[in-house]
Amino acid sequence: MDAIRTPYLTETDRVDRLRLIRSDNVGPRTFYSLLNHFGNARAALERLPDLARRGGAARSGRICSEEEARTELAACRTIGVTLVAPGEAAYPPRLATLEDAPPLLGVRVRAAPDVLIRPMIAIVGSRNASGAGLKFAGQLARELGEAGFVVISGLARGIDQAAHRATVESGTVAVLAGGHDRIYPPEHEELLASIIESGAAISEMPLGHVPRARDFPRRNRLISGAALGVVVVEAALRSGSLITARIAAEQGREVFAVPGSPLDPRAAGTNDLIKQGATLTTEAADVINAVEPIMGRGIALREPDDDPLAPEPDAGDRTRIVDLLGPSPITLDDLIRMAGCSPAIVRTVLLELELAGRIERHGGGLVSLI
Amino acid sequence: MDAIRTPYLTETDRVDRLRLIRSDNVGPRTFYSLLNHFGNARAALERLPDLARRGGAARSGRICSEEEARTELAACRTIGVTLVAPGEAAYPPRLATLEDAPPLLGVRVRAAPDVLIRPMIAIVGSRNASGAGLKFAGQLARELGEAGFVVISGLARGIDQAAHRATVESGTVAVLAGGHDRIYPPEHEELLASIIESGAAISEMPLGHVPRARDFPRRNRLISGAALGVVVVEAALRSGSLITARIAAEQGREVFAVPGSPLDPRAAGTNDLIKQGATLTTEAADVINAVEPIMGRGIALREPDDDPLAPEPDAGDRTRIVDLLGPSPITLDDLIRMAGCSPAIVRTVLLELELAGRIERHGGGLVSLI
Repeated sequence: MDAIRTPYLTETDRVDRLRLIRSDNVGPRTFYSLLNHFGNARAALERLPDLARRGGAARSGRICSEEEARTELAACRTIGVTLVAPGEAAYPPRLATLEDAPPLLGVRVRAAPDVLIRPMIAIVGSRNASGAGLKFAGQLARELGEAGFVVISGLARGIDQAAHRATVESGTVAVLAGGHDRIYPPEHEELLASIIESGAAISEMPLGHVPRARDFPRRNRLISGAALGVVVVEAALRSGSLITARIAAEQGREVFAVPGSPLDPRAAGTNDLIKQGATLTTEAADVINAVEPIMGRGIALREPDDDPLAPEPDAGDRTRIVDLLGPSPITLDDLIRMAGCSPAIVRTVLLELELAGRIERHGGGLVSLI
Repeated sequence: MDAIRTPYLTETDRVDRLRLIRSDNVGPRTFYSLLNHFGNARAALERLPDLARRGGAARSGRICSEEEARTELAACRTIGVTLVAPGEAAYPPRLATLEDAPPLLGVRVRAAPDVLIRPMIAIVGSRNASGAGLKFAGQLARELGEAGFVVISGLARGIDQAAHRATVESGTVAVLAGGHDRIYPPEHEELLASIIESGAAISEMPLGHVPRARDFPRRNRLISGAALGVVVVEAALRSGSLITARIAAEQGREVFAVPGSPLDPRAAGTNDLIKQGATLTTEAADVINAVEPIMGRGIALREPDDDPLAPEPDAGDRTRIVDLLGPSPITLDDLIRMAGCSPAIVRTVLLELELAGRIERHGGGLVSLI
């Protein structure tokens, strides 16, 4: 995939890529698929209206104009945010290995840009944490920082902020669910200012984007994806931190959980994670011993995928594929088998449908009709 | 081994067996070895002085007289204690499978003798337990009792008594480290009285035996040995409960541990057990799900061992074997290999040395010179 291999973008290419990812119905996976097929972002942008129309869009989705993109880039520069692509120097290397890595990541650093390329450990947990949980999170984060790791978290109340505060000096990364100028929760603006003195804040969202509930799970994939592993300090059953742990496992990241009393509801989620195979963690050594062998292996960047698109599929193929889709997610492989078309044709029809805003992509190659 | 297979002992045989196990330097393993070799306890008793002399005893060890044995049996009857052998009806079936099962177990039951043959789960933990630990131990014990399990423990302060108290009605077994007339701690005499209403107390020690520190680890093998598995509720590092967990693992019993905060020293031992592979336990279902498949398998009684003794070894063999022994424990297999004698000769010399009080047997077939 070109995006991964590009060591440095031209200003024009950066503007085109920004336009592409900021256009309606273009998520990271679609972005890479288009880039891969059409060779560059400019060519993909030119084909967007046609592809969406073929996918049955009632009206064309909004395409980000060159002016909008240049305005965003200028505004970013004003507040010290750089937009970097996977493979560029400041892009967290492990994050770049994700299939849905942000095509352009807004990075805000001050004194220590290397904080983004050092090995990271995520520490997450309850917003409504206990005193013991907060104390332990701080202690663990401090020890990991002293051992040379960067602690990455979500700037939330509770465990997140305790982990950040303990590593303001050794280096910590806050991953935002909104734009860089829309800090949530607002009372952590001061904390964020101290974080970026020796650390960084990152976001894939445009400036001005106010984080909504659904942006947090999406953001969480960046916390786990940039890290070697995720430590869940306190988590009730069915809490957001458990979603992060699940995503981390899907991404192939190590999952660590801190045990607690069976009578403490804030330990129910972490105890459950351990039952499911997470590494029981009571000290930094538990984390370090588990990730050291992985660090030795280095980071394999993704190869450009070998999944070409087809020329325009005929109407019969398109109808057959749409008929097979429904609100229940189905895998791409099943779809190919049942439709009896070539994989390239199925992928192309799905791309068209996605650009038309008619399908949703889930993890594990699953798609469903909206 | 005859002891295991005997469905019911004659009164004479019971007296002889009691004399043998109450004689100096005769532990359970030596007891079974002698019984196996000489066919019955009476014949073994007759050979004891000679064997000990051959082992180099300065003076003959004390042999329990028939009168002493009959006096103990009568005293037991007075306070409602029965002395039963492995394979007899009231002997806990899993306990009977141990290599060092008590040859005669003092059993005190009142209304429910079947409590000793129902499936048991051991619950153990800190004497100095936290409020949460006590509450959880009681809750877990109650749920296991309701599910049909007998809870077995050591009548100690803290976790033990909480587990017993919660199962006084459903059935619980207290394993004593001293004689049945020497309850420790004394303040639990009343609890013990209520335990035996629908449960039982068991001990391998003679009446009048005041428990010493070293009797507790020895007693702990009975707690784990009689059970399908052992749940450790709270335990500091290097605590007695961890010894019970280690013995349980050596006996092939399941080990369960209740997690706790890394900041709570009373959870350090249990968290450590989980790191080493114990099953993390937050509810009765964790225990029940793990032991159910084992219960289905039934209990295989030990076969008589096929390790015969030799006729009198010659002096050269004996000297060579004694020279190879030292204060560092060595395995029987290494000893056989290095001495260049037959296994039967090595076993016989060790038996003589043991009866002479000159060697100590450890777990895992290890022996050392005293």
